[in-house]
Amino acid sequence: MTDEETPFDPDQSVGFVETQFATLFEPPNELVLESGAKLGPVTVAYETYGELSPEKDNAIFICHALTGDAHVAGWHDSKDRKPGWWEDFVGPGKGLDTNRYFVICANVLAGCKGTTGPMSIDPATGKPYAMAFPFITVGDMVAVHAELVRYLGVERLLAVVGGSLGGMQVLDWVARYPEQMRAAVCLASAAKLSAQGIAFNVVGRRAILSDPKFKNGEYYGEPEGPRYGLALARMVAHITYLSEVSFEDKFGRKLQQGDRFQYDLEKETEFQVGSYLHYQGKRFVERFDANSYLCLTHAMDYFDLAESYGSLEEALGRTDARFLLSSYTSDWLFPSSQSQELVSALLNRQRNVTYVELESSKGHDAFLLEIDPLQKMITPFLEQTRAAD
Amino acid sequence: MTDEETPFDPDQSVGFVETQFATLFEPPNELVLESGAKLGPVTVAYETYGELSPEKDNAIFICHALTGDAHVAGWHDSKDRKPGWWEDFVGPGKGLDTNRYFVICANVLAGCKGTTGPMSIDPATGKPYAMAFPFITVGDMVAVHAELVRYLGVERLLAVVGGSLGGMQVLDWVARYPEQMRAAVCLASAAKLSAQGIAFNVVGRRAILSDPKFKNGEYYGEPEGPRYGLALARMVAHITYLSEVSFEDKFGRKLQQGDRFQYDLEKETEFQVGSYLHYQGKRFVERFDANSYLCLTHAMDYFDLAESYGSLEEALGRTDARFLLSSYTSDWLFPSSQSQELVSALLNRQRNVTYVELESSKGHDAFLLEIDPLQKMITPFLEQTRAAD
Repeated sequence: MTDEETPFDPDQSVGFVETQFATLFEPPNELVLESGAKLGPVTVAYETYGELSPEKDNAIFICHALTGDAHVAGWHDSKDRKPGWWEDFVGPGKGLDTNRYFVICANVLAGCKGTTGPMSIDPATGKPYAMAFPFITVGDMVAVHAELVRYLGVERLLAVVGGSLGGMQVLDWVARYPEQMRAAVCLASAAKLSAQGIAFNVVGRRAILSDPKFKNGEYYGEPEGPRYGLALARMVAHITYLSEVSFEDKFGRKLQQGDRFQYDLEKETEFQVGSYLHYQGKRFVERFDANSYLCLTHAMDYFDLAESYGSLEEALGRTDARFLLSSYTSDWLFPSSQSQELVSALLNRQRNVTYVELESSKGHDAFLLEIDPLQKMITPFLEQTRAAD
Repeated sequence: MTDEETPFDPDQSVGFVETQFATLFEPPNELVLESGAKLGPVTVAYETYGELSPEKDNAIFICHALTGDAHVAGWHDSKDRKPGWWEDFVGPGKGLDTNRYFVICANVLAGCKGTTGPMSIDPATGKPYAMAFPFITVGDMVAVHAELVRYLGVERLLAVVGGSLGGMQVLDWVARYPEQMRAAVCLASAAKLSAQGIAFNVVGRRAILSDPKFKNGEYYGEPEGPRYGLALARMVAHITYLSEVSFEDKFGRKLQQGDRFQYDLEKETEFQVGSYLHYQGKRFVERFDANSYLCLTHAMDYFDLAESYGSLEEALGRTDARFLLSSYTSDWLFPSSQSQELVSALLNRQRNVTYVELESSKGHDAFLLEIDPLQKMITPFLEQTRAAD
């Protein structure tokens, strides 16, 4: 495209957007983490789309997943290869309609896209925190989100929305600050990670920690970080985001070149599926930080809503928010049974809950890929929420 | 135990056994591999249990899985920590009853337990083959097994038996040498590896290849090989051998020490499931060779029975052997649907086939762990086979 062209249709996209920054928890008012450690100041990178209504009653907060960031929709500049990660779901006339709602998303605490994390400078040493960054929980992420919402002058959100690790943030949020939202939307998520899920995270972290270039996290000044380890962590995680059927549909046993085997032991990417995974690993290393990956997967492993609040009923019964939950038939990382446990707990507490198990072959990533069914649910759900009380 | 004690009950075990060696394919009669390369001589490490009948009609060949070896049953000496890998299934009065049958198992070609593989000395150079070892297929493994059977003076086997990669060998064997067996027993296997299965192998190989101590396979003289990479490959593979339910039942979210989180980013094994996987990786490195692992997983990826023989019907219809197949409800690496495709092809060719989908929570490893249901099927199946024609 030429310099004059914009990459978007202004009727269909929020267009050009800018990441903004807030500094919260300045000493002596540091954030007290769940571990007991204190952290502050905390810089938060966030984006907003749409306009806050004069009544300040139309704000929706999106909690991003493991490797997402604040850039949900639109373009940072005309040279961007891609728009924000949920462009199809957030924008004018879309599922989260920016003509009607004021949408906020912030990079999570311990992230690597502008919010304070292991890459940030530790004011105590003048050097990046690296492995000295404190252990962060999902609750700590939520504490930062909640403070950002207050900072933006919003007392009560219309909704908090998130999938996967973002859904865990939603669940913790309704328990931690039950007054702060009128609705909670939790997609492809769970009240805790399964043992199998922890196992995959253990493998991913092991790949990073055993890369000699990891250097106990002190790789920021080095010409190269633990890129093999981080790529490997992404490759194995990526398998868990798809389904057996989607692998079969997308790749099957197709070869990268021609249709005859090359009988070459040194060839790593003879099958298309191998080439694809290598590509995913390589791209990920360009955009993500290994220390952040360690922090965020640890937070995911630790998350256990029932354990933290006594029971699911206790955790979810504190709020009078309306709930919308969805799971996907082929999601084996966060299987439907885990969403159904949440529904059961909500019903036990006579909460207002809508749950849909969506038919999909796309596995866990369906909440990012199959937008139409989400839009069909969320549009009336938000209208109903806004009309209620 | 004292020196006088034996670790087994002689009524229950084949007891002390010794691995034997055969040299086959001596030049100029080298084995012509599927790739077109030639390999010879080939040393084969094998064990036998029970007695070959005077009519030589009671021999059963076991094809081992990816990381198995010829040592199926019994003890090599009284200091062995464990018996052979299928001790519960092979022995006097057991599923493969050594009072009645002559049982043979050989380490596969490209293995690392005595049969010629990447660790072996290349006669052309006087050094280990390492990455110069030729690319091996499942068909090449079967060609060596078949030659060993002839070498042992057995014209026709009563049965070939195998699970997982061993089952792939069974399937190839009936197509390649259809006269050589009266029965074929294929457990928890498939006519080809799924795209998802290839993806996991790609990750495992990547872990080995990106370990700096791999040194392009030339690590045999080094103080340490690619042990981190190989352990990581095993950890990820091990997840695929269990099921979500077995992880939950075995570990859930139990911690290794106490019941409180330690909020320690450097701790790799806080959850029991992590500790278990690390232990599995560590143990594996003590007993397996990384170059072998590369060869054998490549062979598994390449295996495609329908592609090699035109169709499943064409491959499986060549033999008049009787078939016994089983799959396991919680096996997601070799799901039941893949066994059912085999059954369908066999029925289309009016072969004699028995198939059972066994209820199990143990995942793919069920064929190694849940012996009773196997024994109940195989005992009458073998009797019937022996009584037939």
